[in-house]
Amino acid sequence: MKQDIITMVHGSGGSATSELIHEIFASEFKNDTLDQMEDSAVVEGSARIAVTTDSFVVTPPEFKGGDIGRLCICGTVNDLLMRGAVPKYITCGFILEEGVKIDLLKRVVHSMAETAKEAGVQIVAGDTKVVNGSGELYINTAGVGIVPDGVDIKASNACDGDVIIVSGTMGDHHAAILSERMEIDTNVTSDNAPLVDMVENLLSNNIRVRTLRDITRGGLGTVLKELAEASGKTFYIEDEAIPVKQVVKDFCGLLGLDPIYMGNEGKLVAIVDREDADKALKIIQGSKYGEDAAIIGEVKSENAGEVILKTRIGGKRSIDILQGEGLPRIC
Amino acid sequence: MKQDIITMVHGSGGSATSELIHEIFASEFKNDTLDQMEDSAVVEGSARIAVTTDSFVVTPPEFKGGDIGRLCICGTVNDLLMRGAVPKYITCGFILEEGVKIDLLKRVVHSMAETAKEAGVQIVAGDTKVVNGSGELYINTAGVGIVPDGVDIKASNACDGDVIIVSGTMGDHHAAILSERMEIDTNVTSDNAPLVDMVENLLSNNIRVRTLRDITRGGLGTVLKELAEASGKTFYIEDEAIPVKQVVKDFCGLLGLDPIYMGNEGKLVAIVDREDADKALKIIQGSKYGEDAAIIGEVKSENAGEVILKTRIGGKRSIDILQGEGLPRIC
Repeated sequence: MKQDIITMVHGSGGSATSELIHEIFASEFKNDTLDQMEDSAVVEGSARIAVTTDSFVVTPPEFKGGDIGRLCICGTVNDLLMRGAVPKYITCGFILEEGVKIDLLKRVVHSMAETAKEAGVQIVAGDTKVVNGSGELYINTAGVGIVPDGVDIKASNACDGDVIIVSGTMGDHHAAILSERMEIDTNVTSDNAPLVDMVENLLSNNIRVRTLRDITRGGLGTVLKELAEASGKTFYIEDEAIPVKQVVKDFCGLLGLDPIYMGNEGKLVAIVDREDADKALKIIQGSKYGEDAAIIGEVKSENAGEVILKTRIGGKRSIDILQGEGLPRIC
Repeated sequence: MKQDIITMVHGSGGSATSELIHEIFASEFKNDTLDQMEDSAVVEGSARIAVTTDSFVVTPPEFKGGDIGRLCICGTVNDLLMRGAVPKYITCGFILEEGVKIDLLKRVVHSMAETAKEAGVQIVAGDTKVVNGSGELYINTAGVGIVPDGVDIKASNACDGDVIIVSGTMGDHHAAILSERMEIDTNVTSDNAPLVDMVENLLSNNIRVRTLRDITRGGLGTVLKELAEASGKTFYIEDEAIPVKQVVKDFCGLLGLDPIYMGNEGKLVAIVDREDADKALKIIQGSKYGEDAAIIGEVKSENAGEVILKTRIGGKRSIDILQGEGLPRIC
C-alpha cells in the first residue's frame, strides 16, 4: 500500500479497493475458497447448520490481551459453539472510517487470521466499505457452523435440579477496556478467547449439556436472567461462588461497578444435568481458557424467570437484566 | 419506544437494547427461528451451501425507488444467486450512530422485512451496536443459500464462443443516488431488486449458465474486466448494445459520467453457452426485473483477461476496472 491511511477512494469499488483487498485482506486470510473472489463462497454444508452475526465497535481497537480482530473472531465462534455447533466459516465486513491507519488495519487483520487459525475456522467471504468520519474501525462477522446429529443445546432446556457452571472469572474484558479508556494501569487483561476446546470436550465426553451461553455485553446477571426467563425456571446463585479476579474486584470497588454486570469475551455459562456436574466442571477446568471454572448455582422449577443471588452474609436479592447505561462500545 | 432517536444507552446490552430489539426488529422480522433469540440460529442446511456478506453505508439512506433496507437484502440475496444458490437465511448487523431517528429505523426495518418476503428469505439472526457519531446508519447483512446438486456457476467458467447478456439498463441506482445527493430532480429511480425469479427461471429451464455476476460498485466495466481475468478469456462488447435509459444517458452527459462504470443494484451479467443464448435472453426478459435485458457481447479465447469495447463508429477501446475515485457510499 502506498498510503498510510484509509481514504474514500479505498471504498470506490475500483482499483484502490482491489489493492486494499489483495494486499491487506487476501494475503492474511488466504484459503482456496476466499481466493476465488466470488460474490459468495460455496462450501461444504450439513443437514443442520448454525448461523450467527455480530458487529464489533470496541474502543480502543487494541487493548491489553487482545484487539478488535481477535474479539470479532472469538465472539462469532463462541456464538456458534453455544448451540453445540462446530464453527466452520466466517464472513467479515469491514466498515472503515476515513483516516484508519493502514498499520492498525494490518495488525487487526493479522490478529483475525491468527485467531481463526486457533479456532479452526476459515474466513470465506468479505466486504469493505469506507465512510466519512474520524478513523474508527468497525467489523461485522457472521459465522456458519455445522450442528452434529443429536445435539440440541438451547436456552429453554434447563431442568429442575440442573447445575449452573461459569467457565472462569467475571469482568476481565470489561475492566480491561475501561482501564484502557481511563488510562489506569491495572494489569487487567481481556479474556477474549475462542472456547472451541471447552465445548468440544464437553460434547465428546457426553456431558448432558442443556444450555450454553457466552457471557458478553450485560454480563452474567443479564445472561442468567435471560436464560431463567427462556426456560421458565428460577436460578439460585451463590454470590461467593462467582469467580472474580482480585484485581478486577479492586477495580470494581474503586469505581462502584458490579462484576455481575460486567462483560467478558471468553467465558460461558453451562447448565448441565446434576449427575454430570462434577465431571463437567473438571472437563471445563481442564480445557483451554477454563482453569477458573466454578459451579455457581442451580435450577429450580419455581417462580418462573427469577434469578436469586444468595449473598455471603445470608441475604437474597433478585437479579434483573442490566438497566440503564452499561459501558458502551465494549465489543 | 419512548425516545425519538437512538442514544448510546440502546447499545449497552441491557434493558434499552432489549426494548429496541423487541419493538423494532423482532416485530418486523418475526419467524420461529429468530423468535428463539439464541446466540446463533440452528436451521436446515444442505450438502453444499453458499455464504456471503456485504455492508451497506449508502447515503442518503432513503432514495427514489428504495432505501438501505431494501438494498441490503437485495445485495445479499443477489450475491447468493450469482453462484446458483437458493437464498435461504439472512443475518443482519446494525451499526447505529447516536442520533439515528427511530422513525427512519422503523421504515428501513420494515423495508427489509418486505424485501425478505419478496425474495423468500428468512432473517434468522441479528445484532445491534450503537456508536458515537452523527446519526448515520450502517447495516451488514450476511447470507446463506443452498446450492442444488450439479450447479456450478463461477467466474472462471466462461468458454470460447459464450454469449454475454446483461439483465437490464446500466447506471440507474448510481444515477438515482447521485441525483438525490445533488438535489437534481431527474426522475431516475434505483433498480435495487432481488433477482430470485430470473435466476430460478434460468436454472429450471436448464440454460447452460457458466457465470453470473451482479453489477454493483464499479459498474459493468469493472465486473467484465474481473470476469475476463478470472476466466483467462477476452470479452468483446458492443457499446451500442449496452442498455442505458435515456434519462440516465442525459444525466451522465451532463456530469461527464460513463454508464459503464456506474453501479446498479438489481442487474446481472450472465455468460451462457452460445446455443442457449436466445432462449436465455427471452427467459431473462420474461422474468421479474429483466424486461430490458440484452445480449452485449461474446467470449473469445485470445489475449487472456482483456475486455474490448467496440464503439458505434467502429473504434475499439480496452476496458479496465474503475480507476481512482468512484462515487463513494453508493451501497
